[in-house]
Amino acid sequence: MPLNKDTSTIAWIGTGVMGVPMAGHLMDGGWKVVVYNRTKAKAEPLLERGAQWADTPGEAAAQADVVFTIVGFPHDVRSIYLDAGGIMERARPGTILVDMTTSDPVLAVEIAEKAAARGLQALDCPVSGGEIGAKEARLSIMGGGDEQAFEQVRPLLELMGKKIVRHGGPGKGQYAKLANQILLAGQMVSVAEALVFARAVGLDEDKAFESLGAGAGAGYSFQTFWPKMVNGDNKPGFYVRHFIKDMDLALNESERLRLFTPALGLARLLYDRVVELGGEDLGTQAIYLALKDVG
Amino acid sequence: MPLNKDTSTIAWIGTGVMGVPMAGHLMDGGWKVVVYNRTKAKAEPLLERGAQWADTPGEAAAQADVVFTIVGFPHDVRSIYLDAGGIMERARPGTILVDMTTSDPVLAVEIAEKAAARGLQALDCPVSGGEIGAKEARLSIMGGGDEQAFEQVRPLLELMGKKIVRHGGPGKGQYAKLANQILLAGQMVSVAEALVFARAVGLDEDKAFESLGAGAGAGYSFQTFWPKMVNGDNKPGFYVRHFIKDMDLALNESERLRLFTPALGLARLLYDRVVELGGEDLGTQAIYLALKDVG
Repeated sequence: MPLNKDTSTIAWIGTGVMGVPMAGHLMDGGWKVVVYNRTKAKAEPLLERGAQWADTPGEAAAQADVVFTIVGFPHDVRSIYLDAGGIMERARPGTILVDMTTSDPVLAVEIAEKAAARGLQALDCPVSGGEIGAKEARLSIMGGGDEQAFEQVRPLLELMGKKIVRHGGPGKGQYAKLANQILLAGQMVSVAEALVFARAVGLDEDKAFESLGAGAGAGYSFQTFWPKMVNGDNKPGFYVRHFIKDMDLALNESERLRLFTPALGLARLLYDRVVELGGEDLGTQAIYLALKDVG
Repeated sequence: MPLNKDTSTIAWIGTGVMGVPMAGHLMDGGWKVVVYNRTKAKAEPLLERGAQWADTPGEAAAQADVVFTIVGFPHDVRSIYLDAGGIMERARPGTILVDMTTSDPVLAVEIAEKAAARGLQALDCPVSGGEIGAKEARLSIMGGGDEQAFEQVRPLLELMGKKIVRHGGPGKGQYAKLANQILLAGQMVSVAEALVFARAVGLDEDKAFESLGAGAGAGYSFQTFWPKMVNGDNKPGFYVRHFIKDMDLALNESERLRLFTPALGLARLLYDRVVELGGEDLGTQAIYLALKDVG
């Protein structure tokens, strides 16, 4: 049955920094949304705008035609999907399950298989673009799973992102996202190193921002994080502890496949230093703390 | 005396991958150009269009109101400026000398001081943006040196670049460029690692290019070098051996100032591996060769 704004219900599970604006775009698009979050207070911005509340992920899923999830860690994904009374058990046949958490590709395959066995479809659709991308509906959404199910939810994904690509079967969205995080991890270190250097040699940080932003090192991470590092603004858009989880997933795959990814390994080590400094709940730009005053 | 297209002459020394299009933009702008290059054949595209030839850097400088130089290494810069019969000796008082080579900040200060002692002005104005930036006059030009001299040549710089910033006194342009190269060095590794990973997990490289290009890792280096790495196109826009020189300059400063720049150090190590594999005259995207098939 095709999705329809008048008759279909969307469940949204996970209303963190990313989830709130993303679900908000669905509501803006006219869709009826039922939400669940571990901490109810974080769902308030959506509830105030008319979203329904559900007391458990399973209860939300039981009412829905499409279930979106974006939670913290793979063990959270496993729990909300596979626990007794969870999404997998409660969702009605025909429901499409879309996990947007950056999570384990192997778990994504397991969930897709269990879903198929119950007459459901499960997609992995993690995103990149950060809090700004979520707010401005400019995310890059990387999909894996059944093509027909993906095309059914594409209009919903298009409300949240500007680039929607299906990379293949179950897990392939997660693999694309891990490649994205590998690309990003080294860049976070490089942005911080360039700032450490610029300050030590007495450059004006704003002039350096202009010049470097027009040079061959320019990009999203430089534009986004250099000013935050300059200002010592470590407020999370994207949490250090979540980025560490992503890097660990990528490192696990890298090890399994015997790949050589030294910049990823270096970034992971340096983020451990950020955690030692008490920064796991800061934004990823806190990598600067691991580099300054060290030499 | 203000510069004037009817009466002023521009000397251009160094007609490599960058120099030819950059000098070409000055000629397009109506300026009279006299060129020198160690290998005359590489100056042909400019000579064919009416540039004058000079047999030595000093001979070119003796005829010029502004001397631009963009050569390979700091020892080349030292030689063309400071050798007997070189630019410093032959340039007429009042001439502005503009070194656009990425070179040693300490050498830039030395040249600026020697120039001032002879009634000349010397600026350091290295550039970023690669061969494409040079061809499309979209370079980021990072200036150091006397402000008045910089403003005098600004209209010429604007023919070559889209972002022209003076970072302070002599050497500060070089420092900004080294910060730029630190930002870039880690990114080159990260682009290659993301591709190594993407291929190993069976992603389609073109789809990954779409998704990652819209995500938080997006930027000039990814857009420029991912497709070249995918296609095994290691043709130089920017030579490995020149990038190594830049990284060594940055590492020297980093060591002198006791900074912690591990991603720069890692990139430098990996480019040594590229050289071992015979790649010093390849483009910087050849970093991929140092990562693939290693694990």
